[in-house]
Amino acid sequence: MTQVYNFAAGPAVLPAEVLRQVQSELISYKNSGMSIMEISHRSSLYTDMAFQAEADLRKLMNIPAEYDVLFLQGGATLQFALAPLNLANKYHKIAFADTGHWAQRAQEDGQLLSGYTTEVAASSKLSNYTELPSGIELAKNYDYLHLTMNNTIEGTMYKDLPYKGDVPVVGDLSSIILGQEYNVNDFGMIYAGAQKNIGPAGLTIVIVKHTLFEEAPELPAMFSYAKQAAKHSALNTPPVFAIYVAGLVFKWLLQQGGVSQMQRRNEEKAQLLYDYLDSSKLFSTPVTEKKWRSLTNIPFVTGDKAIDKRFIVQAQANNLLNLKGHRLVGGMRASLYNAFPRTGVEKLIEFMQKFEKAVGGTR
Amino acid sequence: MTQVYNFAAGPAVLPAEVLRQVQSELISYKNSGMSIMEISHRSSLYTDMAFQAEADLRKLMNIPAEYDVLFLQGGATLQFALAPLNLANKYHKIAFADTGHWAQRAQEDGQLLSGYTTEVAASSKLSNYTELPSGIELAKNYDYLHLTMNNTIEGTMYKDLPYKGDVPVVGDLSSIILGQEYNVNDFGMIYAGAQKNIGPAGLTIVIVKHTLFEEAPELPAMFSYAKQAAKHSALNTPPVFAIYVAGLVFKWLLQQGGVSQMQRRNEEKAQLLYDYLDSSKLFSTPVTEKKWRSLTNIPFVTGDKAIDKRFIVQAQANNLLNLKGHRLVGGMRASLYNAFPRTGVEKLIEFMQKFEKAVGGTR
Repeated sequence: MTQVYNFAAGPAVLPAEVLRQVQSELISYKNSGMSIMEISHRSSLYTDMAFQAEADLRKLMNIPAEYDVLFLQGGATLQFALAPLNLANKYHKIAFADTGHWAQRAQEDGQLLSGYTTEVAASSKLSNYTELPSGIELAKNYDYLHLTMNNTIEGTMYKDLPYKGDVPVVGDLSSIILGQEYNVNDFGMIYAGAQKNIGPAGLTIVIVKHTLFEEAPELPAMFSYAKQAAKHSALNTPPVFAIYVAGLVFKWLLQQGGVSQMQRRNEEKAQLLYDYLDSSKLFSTPVTEKKWRSLTNIPFVTGDKAIDKRFIVQAQANNLLNLKGHRLVGGMRASLYNAFPRTGVEKLIEFMQKFEKAVGGTR
Repeated sequence: MTQVYNFAAGPAVLPAEVLRQVQSELISYKNSGMSIMEISHRSSLYTDMAFQAEADLRKLMNIPAEYDVLFLQGGATLQFALAPLNLANKYHKIAFADTGHWAQRAQEDGQLLSGYTTEVAASSKLSNYTELPSGIELAKNYDYLHLTMNNTIEGTMYKDLPYKGDVPVVGDLSSIILGQEYNVNDFGMIYAGAQKNIGPAGLTIVIVKHTLFEEAPELPAMFSYAKQAAKHSALNTPPVFAIYVAGLVFKWLLQQGGVSQMQRRNEEKAQLLYDYLDSSKLFSTPVTEKKWRSLTNIPFVTGDKAIDKRFIVQAQANNLLNLKGHRLVGGMRASLYNAFPRTGVEKLIEFMQKFEKAVGGTR
């Protein structure tokens, strides 16, 4: 099999050890004679597995007992609508930090729910989202402040919270969860699609302080955090396979030394690429201020669309895959999640150097 | 590996050929060097696969062009809330046939959405849901009539529609889709969780007439059929792995001769078990009227809870798994979906005969 390096922003690369384990026990899970895809979600085979996955995630993120951990479906995007319905019960008013595309999408969906008001509390639009707003101040009459902690498209990231007040913070951690240490206590709720730093697409993790949704009106079953929490996310059939793979990834992360170790490796991988980008005469990253640079999603351009295109095609031919930037910003993007190996970054830089030499780059 | 027979109501047994293919290409999908779980949903590897899965499903069910086929998440249960939001735009009023637990759950969720009225158009509550209401008549001022076509818990099933009027029918086909021939044109919308007759949990199929949701107000992204249809179900990251396995099952079904062939086999398998139940002195099914009997979910009891319990334990020890009935009705249940082999039914009957003899059954 050809060794490829997959820089996709999600679905993304998974640990090779995890894939091998999934493959080896795919036909008969724990010698049950049934595939993990065939087991009942009411059997102990399932409940033991899901319980362990939750316990391992709690350990990895040091999640306090007063937070529920929910294994849901629908992607982070579904939470754009469900978070308001479950959490915005007092003021029906939500503040957003406008930090880029996904933050805007989250606000738009909140605005489409009748009875809720959304407001931009801070924006980095003027810097074309290459920076992030900090020192955010808020009146108290908001149910929560929504923060996209890592902006997958724009390549920016909050390493610390830009707000220290009393309004609960809801953080979209889709592309940084388990890749950087955060204090769960700083958030009222954390949510993340699994397909970037956790496991296969089709699983969404919600970590939410129980008291925040206790006052919600009764909602239809699959809209309701309270109903899901009461049933340990098995209100209906949960996405068993995705939870299973996520659980294997959690075990892998624990074996590797946990989130602090992942953060250290991610910092090293990112540093290699940023250092090269900062020294290159052909390539550059639009995120010039170091403190806002994402650890996991690194956009870069040559400044010439034709050369960008040629680079992506040639990289692909050299087994450096999915380097095309998001259609909204163009250029290139390297996503370096937990499971992405350092060797892949080195190969990319090597290739970029060769490419730069061939182009005779001046920018 | 021990040969087991898995009678689970869902997640349920998958075709052995499909599991073997998933296993064989799990590490490198189509020699890409990436697992199917790692491929980007914006790559042609994904779009080709999803396009083919949809084409095969359209072929299997003879789905007319004016119906959209959506690959969603959240289980059939999420559709209990989304169908009203997308389809009930004229009268905000929905009629339900009360045919059992899941029909009631669907109605409850509709009722919890503010601005919508739900009404019971017909009920088989008086027969304790062992029959189904037929010859349903309705005034025109309903947006749709909701029918649970196969009642997984109660073991009843509509082989034909019980309503012939102008109000569109929304059918929950979760436990019978692709197992019995239906005419899609008879429905305004069909929905089904995948984990019974299609593939792994985490995928929901929605087949919906485009004109029915055109008048819906703008909804948050993941609530909206219109937005999902416009993006071919890739509005956000779709559940790639589940769609992939479903696609393999569709190919398998086509190779087996399609839905008519599956129906024939399901009829044969069910007949074997019903014939035995009708002749047994120990076991019986609560669904006495043959025309209402489900092809895929067959509940049965001995009439003595202690004996039921002993039966389930001994069956399990004989590799006849997951025969315990739903907690709401107790007793036993054999789910005989498309991928469930005839041999398994024969083994079950053989075991029941032995058990009956040992008990010295009189009921």
